Amino acid sequence: MVEQAPEASFELPVRVYIEDTDAGGIVFHAKYLHYMERARTEWVRSCGVSLRAGLADNISYVVQRLDIHYAVAAKLDDELLVTAEPVAFGRVWMDFRQRVLRAADRKLLSDSNVRVACVALDTGRPRRLPENMQDLLARNVQQPTETINRTSQE
Amino acid sequence: MVEQAPEASFELPVRVYIEDTDAGGIVFHAKYLHYMERARTEWVRSCGVSLRAGLADNISYVVQRLDIHYAVAAKLDDELLVTAEPVAFGRVWMDFRQRVLRAADRKLLSDSNVRVACVALDTGRPRRLPENMQDLLARNVQQPTETINRTSQE
Amino acid sequence: MVEQAPEASFELPVRVYIEDTDAGGIVFHAKYLHYMERARTEWVRSCGVSLRAGLADNISYVVQRLDIHYAVAAKLDDELLVTAEPVAFGRVWMDFRQRVLRAADRKLLSDSNVRVACVALDTGRPRRLPENMQDLLARNVQQPTETINRTSQE
Amino acid sequence: MVEQAPEASFELPVRVYIEDTDAGGIVFHAKYLHYMERARTEWVRSCGVSLRAGLADNISYVVQRLDIHYAVAAKLDDELLVTAEPVAFGRVWMDFRQRVLRAADRKLLSDSNVRVACVALDTGRPRRLPENMQDLLARNVQQPTETINRTSQE
Repeated sequence: MVEQAPEASFELPVRVYIEDTDAGGIVFHAKYLHYMERARTEWVRSCGVSLRAGLADNISYVVQRLDIHYAVAAKLDDELLVTAEPVAFGRVWMDFRQRVLRAADRKLLSDSNVRVACVALDTGRPRRLPENMQDLLARNVQQPTETINRTSQE
Repeated sequence: MVEQAPEASFELPVRVYIEDTDAGGIVFHAKYLHYMERARTEWVRSCGVSLRAGLADNISYVVQRLDIHYAVAAKLDDELLVTAEPVAFGRVWMDFRQRVLRAADRKLLSDSNVRVACVALDTGRPRRLPENMQDLLARNVQQPTETINRTSQE
Repeated sequence: MVEQAPEASFELPVRVYIEDTDAGGIVFHAKYLHYMERARTEWVRSCGVSLRAGLADNISYVVQRLDIHYAVAAKLDDELLVTAEPVAFGRVWMDFRQRVLRAADRKLLSDSNVRVACVALDTGRPRRLPENMQDLLARNVQQPTETINRTSQE
Repeated sequence: MVEQAPEASFELPVRVYIEDTDAGGIVFHAKYLHYMERARTEWVRSCGVSLRAGLADNISYVVQRLDIHYAVAAKLDDELLVTAEPVAFGRVWMDFRQRVLRAADRKLLSDSNVRVACVALDTGRPRRLPENMQDLLARNVQQPTETINRTSQE
């Protein structure tokens, strides 16, 4: 279960602060979702797309589902690496594989799949991914994957 | 420093969960600000005013300043009582005295003064408190306090 | 997707506060994990088991994995009901089905499976569930499920 | 009130993520306390002192009191600079002046005074600052300030 993770194309360094920990002496499990959101945001930003500009255009992104496996607990002062690898996308959604590693030894701390949907900020209804996001995904994912859409969870 | 607090007119019960604690084994200090915001919200709600309706009318509230003294640390599973006592208000702001007590023995855990300003949601600029909030404050604070308004506030 | 949820044996009321929301105008997705942890904690407490006493005995609980599907977004001021239904357990773990409903109409907002493992607080290593927790689970789950244990769990 | 801040000796860059914002479209006010804690932590780390090592030695730090004035709201995607300037210390405490600036134009977003006390992790009782922390403070603050110890804030 404890394993070293291979290099990912995008890895965001994240430091663990006291705010992230709980009375069990480890990072509170929900915090990994924060770290992963930061990594997705920075991946998008690194490609020149800004979330705030999106909000101004009535575009928002919501997590539609995720699964996460916690292997080893992160602790206070740890430096982490959080990956964000787009693995599939459709007209209104994109799927990411995201891992959290301990920077010092690249131990795998958590492994996750996250589906993010594009919605209209005002109504919350699904809407087509904006062009620049589609282009970004097309350059980073082998092929549009609407057809191989997972059927298990809707 | 450790003292028992007198009964306040409004006290919100709040339970401490693991999410609120940190690796020091106590409630993370910023969490008290969450508790106090919940108490202000519930005080307002108990008087029939809803924040969400406010947002729909382009009205938002922001904390403009606060001071807080932490006397005794709250811990996992503690049941707390959080007070929200309006003590002064002006055209665009209201001041609260807020204490956090441990329910079991009414020990004073923290004591705080909070100034909240009313702003327009879209621009963030100060705006007159809505009528229902002014009425609410007038019924709960001895007298309008614009004249003794600390001058540093805008 | 939007559906009404059946009555669950344990439902914790949770109010949505401004602290739970994000600039998208909805509850931040990681917050549902907080709500679910609170519901598990209160379910345990309702059965007479205290987490803090556990910590004093070097017993802690960690989330080992979870999946969650977000159906409808919770919003500011919403009153939610959060279920915690133990569905299986082994020597060192327990599985919960947890849903978040909107109290007003019992709309299903999220649906989740969560595996929680018992660990020693000091070492973080898995340890046998304490007797009182085993008894609690035995009374609430049809039968021990070690044999149908998913194999990936440790 | 809106002003440009002078260069501080220690400034931590902090990015605003969606997790930090609320339905009012701005950073939730309690989050500034998180940012300031991170800055104090990194200032200490930059001087070679680790918090985790402290916990292992039964040393913890708690915020004893703070005041903060919010001048301008931080928003999604903003890059901030968070200062941590030790201004006084005694046997068991240290005072920091901390400001949050918007990196783009060095606008002052918040200004704060924070008193942090050193406590024993197990009992929560005040204890003498460890030697390395005292040395660090002595090098960064003009003179020990026990004698001018707080009269201003109670």
